[in-house]
Amino acid sequence: MKACGLVVEYNPFHYGHQYHLKQAKEKTNADCVIAVMSGNFLQRGEPAIMDKYSRAKAAILGGVDLVIELPYVYAVQYSDYFAKGAIDILYHSGVNSICFGSESGNINSFSDAYLLKKQHHDQYEAHVKTYLNEGYAYPDAATKAYQSIFGISSILDMSKPNNILGLSYVQAIKDSQYPIKPITIKRIQNNYHDTAITGNIASATSIRKEVLKNPSASETAAETMPATTLDILKSYKYEAGCWHDWELYFPFLKYRVETMTLTELQQIEGIIEGLEHRIARTASEASSFQEWMTALKTKRYTWTRLQRIFVHILTNKKKEENMLANNIGYMRVLAMNKTGQAYLNQQKKQTELPFITKINQIQHPFLQTEERAAKAFYSVLPGSKHRKFFLQEIKSPIIIK
Amino acid sequence: MKACGLVVEYNPFHYGHQYHLKQAKEKTNADCVIAVMSGNFLQRGEPAIMDKYSRAKAAILGGVDLVIELPYVYAVQYSDYFAKGAIDILYHSGVNSICFGSESGNINSFSDAYLLKKQHHDQYEAHVKTYLNEGYAYPDAATKAYQSIFGISSILDMSKPNNILGLSYVQAIKDSQYPIKPITIKRIQNNYHDTAITGNIASATSIRKEVLKNPSASETAAETMPATTLDILKSYKYEAGCWHDWELYFPFLKYRVETMTLTELQQIEGIIEGLEHRIARTASEASSFQEWMTALKTKRYTWTRLQRIFVHILTNKKKEENMLANNIGYMRVLAMNKTGQAYLNQQKKQTELPFITKINQIQHPFLQTEERAAKAFYSVLPGSKHRKFFLQEIKSPIIIK
Repeated sequence: MKACGLVVEYNPFHYGHQYHLKQAKEKTNADCVIAVMSGNFLQRGEPAIMDKYSRAKAAILGGVDLVIELPYVYAVQYSDYFAKGAIDILYHSGVNSICFGSESGNINSFSDAYLLKKQHHDQYEAHVKTYLNEGYAYPDAATKAYQSIFGISSILDMSKPNNILGLSYVQAIKDSQYPIKPITIKRIQNNYHDTAITGNIASATSIRKEVLKNPSASETAAETMPATTLDILKSYKYEAGCWHDWELYFPFLKYRVETMTLTELQQIEGIIEGLEHRIARTASEASSFQEWMTALKTKRYTWTRLQRIFVHILTNKKKEENMLANNIGYMRVLAMNKTGQAYLNQQKKQTELPFITKINQIQHPFLQTEERAAKAFYSVLPGSKHRKFFLQEIKSPIIIK
Repeated sequence: MKACGLVVEYNPFHYGHQYHLKQAKEKTNADCVIAVMSGNFLQRGEPAIMDKYSRAKAAILGGVDLVIELPYVYAVQYSDYFAKGAIDILYHSGVNSICFGSESGNINSFSDAYLLKKQHHDQYEAHVKTYLNEGYAYPDAATKAYQSIFGISSILDMSKPNNILGLSYVQAIKDSQYPIKPITIKRIQNNYHDTAITGNIASATSIRKEVLKNPSASETAAETMPATTLDILKSYKYEAGCWHDWELYFPFLKYRVETMTLTELQQIEGIIEGLEHRIARTASEASSFQEWMTALKTKRYTWTRLQRIFVHILTNKKKEENMLANNIGYMRVLAMNKTGQAYLNQQKKQTELPFITKINQIQHPFLQTEERAAKAFYSVLPGSKHRKFFLQEIKSPIIIK
């Protein structure tokens, strides 16, 4: 069986994702589409609207064959590290190709950009350093370095978020010399950060805003996602009592920061250069997550970077944890259909790393982080619901026949 | 001016306290009554029903002249350590006598018991050790050791909670050879743990239960406390939106434990002998504080001992903090009337240790713990209220003229 891999967040699965999925199948002739999906916390440093099991289920009902979890340690990271984790997992899952959406839509521009970056490695690194010294955050410094050397639209427009991610995927494949063919599809949807729903292909951000605004899930939102996703969203709200949102976590986050010592804060991933002092100082003045973020944001500490740090504080993710394991040690299946199951049975015999499902199936440092992240995610639910939702972590994966 | 000291929790100040206060004044002829009062968390390991400022104010309106905070590091401790902190503070505040309530009511029995314990020191310690090995908690082991050597009612009935505390006070005075005269008053109220209000002298536990049961504060409760206390209780509820109760803290406590590593849990004060494993394991199964405590309670880990440990987890109070300072370094005034103010002005000139009011007035390790404890206490309030209440910590004390 031939497999094609996707790197996704599905927050939640909508028509844009379904379009991408069909395109990927057509272009690669794959028998099985595997989606590596972020868990409960997303790359932009946010809790997902609903938990990973619900999102994985919606993905399978929408046409994906197999959903594998992108571990927290990769999922809540800047693009290079995020991509490295996702591509490693897809490689060990045996995919022949990966397919990603991009503003460019032309795969050659990614290969060319990768080569160009490699050829001008020293110059590129020097520029990155300069921009870092000027106070830019790493991803911005990297983009600016790229642009100032190669021009904005010469080969690949690196001001576009999906082009940046795409180059990270291509780089991860080529750096590891994986026999995976990268394919890209031109994104036809809104800009990543657009918050207005304008067609039936909408951005994740706009759908989330729309749905959260209107608890009964408005007609507009309904036009942007399959009925299966909408049912799962409503069912989650019914069962859990909420859709997840940073403001829900604000009391916990604030409580955590206010009862940590500065030394403890300093050990949290992403906290460098004395940021612990600013976070501690601003904590007592903020009366909402939005207010706190606004007080903290600077050129160096972008919104996304700060949100990721807040996720790490919430989940107690420390810098030292990154040193406990350097590589993925397993592929964790969240959900699958018959095709996915057949693929898994075939693949199990020939992979170096185990496919697992339950969080306690093997011992691995990433799974300890995962457990804390899951518990932190469910902490906003009423006491009696925690356990029920957490128990999914030690149950069999979702199988849709 | 002659001063008499009381060691109190005032949770909240009621007629029983007022009776004690009058008796203390009469028996000692003191010009000024100083109450050393626990802060936001109490000796039994519980949040106070309302914050320390409200409780201190109620005490002044009820007739106390000066309220000094018993630092968290002493307040949330077993009786010997609790008493040591309180007596040290009263000594440095210049009191001539202390007056405590006891089931015995006879001060000679305390002096005799102290001497007896001292004379049989080795035998006593050996018995304590035996009981500890049998699985009893320290305070229970100490009581049992005392009873098995000296008999239950021979000199002092050490099965009574206020006799135990009283002996701790007398011991703290005599061990340090402080020139303070201990006086005791026979308690006429209910047993410490009685939960039914039976007269107009009621136990703290029963008043709290009654008031919490009936948000408008029932008539029965009104008969047990001055109108001033009742108004402060109602006003606190109006301003803060709640009266404090362990169940309110349950989501925070559970979140905290579920996102701590076992190593981190092991560093929390009071967690020994692998208790961290049991606390972590039971966390995910509990859907209320009551349920969690019930699952954890054993002969060795009594309700009170476990509650104290939970307070330490909530406030992130670590074992190492006890090593940062061995002695009190200040007396912190929470509230006073004119008499208290006059006494303070006189006393300021002759004391070794400073009287302070604001949490940031001097640097002391106890004050760092105090700050975290205050923030943890207010964490259950809505976001916009935290700061308002916390700011009391850096304001002038309450002065009632």
